[in-house]
Amino acid sequence: MQKYIDIVNEKLNEFMPIDYPHKLFKSMKYTVTLPGKRLRPVMCLESCRMFGGNFEDAIPTACAIEMLHSQTLIHDDLPCMDNDNYRRGQLTNHMVFGEATAVLAGDALLTFAPQIIVKNSKHLGSEKLIKILEEYFHAAGAYGVIAGQVVDIESEKLAGNFDPEDEQLPELLNYIHTHKTADLFKLALRTGAIIADASDKQLNAITEFGQYMGVAFQIADDILDVTSTFEEMGKTLGKDEQEGKLTYVSLFGLEKAKSDLNSYICKCFEILKDNNLKSDIFEQILNKIRIS
Amino acid sequence: MQKYIDIVNEKLNEFMPIDYPHKLFKSMKYTVTLPGKRLRPVMCLESCRMFGGNFEDAIPTACAIEMLHSQTLIHDDLPCMDNDNYRRGQLTNHMVFGEATAVLAGDALLTFAPQIIVKNSKHLGSEKLIKILEEYFHAAGAYGVIAGQVVDIESEKLAGNFDPEDEQLPELLNYIHTHKTADLFKLALRTGAIIADASDKQLNAITEFGQYMGVAFQIADDILDVTSTFEEMGKTLGKDEQEGKLTYVSLFGLEKAKSDLNSYICKCFEILKDNNLKSDIFEQILNKIRIS
Repeated sequence: MQKYIDIVNEKLNEFMPIDYPHKLFKSMKYTVTLPGKRLRPVMCLESCRMFGGNFEDAIPTACAIEMLHSQTLIHDDLPCMDNDNYRRGQLTNHMVFGEATAVLAGDALLTFAPQIIVKNSKHLGSEKLIKILEEYFHAAGAYGVIAGQVVDIESEKLAGNFDPEDEQLPELLNYIHTHKTADLFKLALRTGAIIADASDKQLNAITEFGQYMGVAFQIADDILDVTSTFEEMGKTLGKDEQEGKLTYVSLFGLEKAKSDLNSYICKCFEILKDNNLKSDIFEQILNKIRIS
Repeated sequence: MQKYIDIVNEKLNEFMPIDYPHKLFKSMKYTVTLPGKRLRPVMCLESCRMFGGNFEDAIPTACAIEMLHSQTLIHDDLPCMDNDNYRRGQLTNHMVFGEATAVLAGDALLTFAPQIIVKNSKHLGSEKLIKILEEYFHAAGAYGVIAGQVVDIESEKLAGNFDPEDEQLPELLNYIHTHKTADLFKLALRTGAIIADASDKQLNAITEFGQYMGVAFQIADDILDVTSTFEEMGKTLGKDEQEGKLTYVSLFGLEKAKSDLNSYICKCFEILKDNNLKSDIFEQILNKIRIS
């Protein structure tokens, strides 16, 4: 896993020059190169390898997905959205570069990322490139992460005032988790698989895997928000609880959250086993989410 | 020209359903379907036709460029940018839908637009699609409109306090006009030409044409800001002057602005003539900019 992370970090640095206007490119690069787990690019590279591809073919796409992920962080942190001052232990983008530049840096990343894919993956052929871009557009857009963020913001109106018995709430929360988190996981896994020429059956399996993993990851995040510290996580915590936000923990309680987290993780292991897929890296990631 | 405009309006409406989350899609559609001159899509369709292509092949791309243009308007109008309340005689996006949704609707349009191209232009073949998308990414991104907007915002720091004798200012202003305006014109013209299989020589000619036309258009806009009224333009005017903003008029004076505008327009006519290109529509557009 560390090998993948090192490659991704090196390539992210290489793919992001500080061109003119410097402030814009610095702002873009700032959030993309903050220390991070590089979970999504690792998932893309490993999916490609697991399905018999050469992981190096997936490097530009993996990096592009990290850029897209950073874009969502920059805009989600804005004062008009979650209004967060810290991210990964560092000041958020708008705190360093100002709000206008942060909005524009996020905008720029949305088209810079697929530009990186196209420029550096020509050898995959136009047809496969179009497939990858279609996955990217879908996950990045109004049917993907943005849908999740819009509904998440809407759900904040319920803050401190929702009825845990309301039968629509679990579905609402699942929608938010699916789009805010699982969609980028699925993007990483699916594009890796597409680059490796995976079959439709394999694509479906890895999509289901990404869905469960994304939801598990988000439940873990909700749990950590109430049980962890700023030092451990590098971001402001306990905000969800303070604000009475709709989360897996506030809706179902800490115990059920923990047990559901583990059953989602078990489902992920089952999918790997049922499809005869072997990956130490995916097992490591799943075990890490479980422990936390 | 009206035929093109009607087709574009009809297709924009068709390409933009109100899916869930409704608020997001309504916000996206709101700005895209505000009444407008549809200058960029018309330029794309006409460029395709002028170079011997079937303009219908360019409809999805033309509409995507209008969506991209709307994206730039939504974000430029935000409180942290130009803070405008009116656009095309209507309330700006964030005034209707709130700031968070306006940011996200703009984000969504950035990937929704190329998605429309890919979905509806498959018959052009993957190779040509990739070429069109590369043009789109370039114009939409950190080397295109966003570069222009960043430098424009930076230049506002000079407001009311710049030295008209400063030799770097004309270059700075030209950079802003090139990227904020000409880049989208060039995108429209170049993609239309690419769809029509124009030669490299023709592509260069239409790029130069777009560059001059974009700058002319922006000079005209600067002139109108001091000579026109809200009723005529549908947006708040005189702001540039009030704020002591760097514009073609504030830098060179109204007379020189008017005469330079006309010489840029003459250059555009020359390019058409020199390359044996005939287009009533481009002539109409040029004459309209001239009169205003």
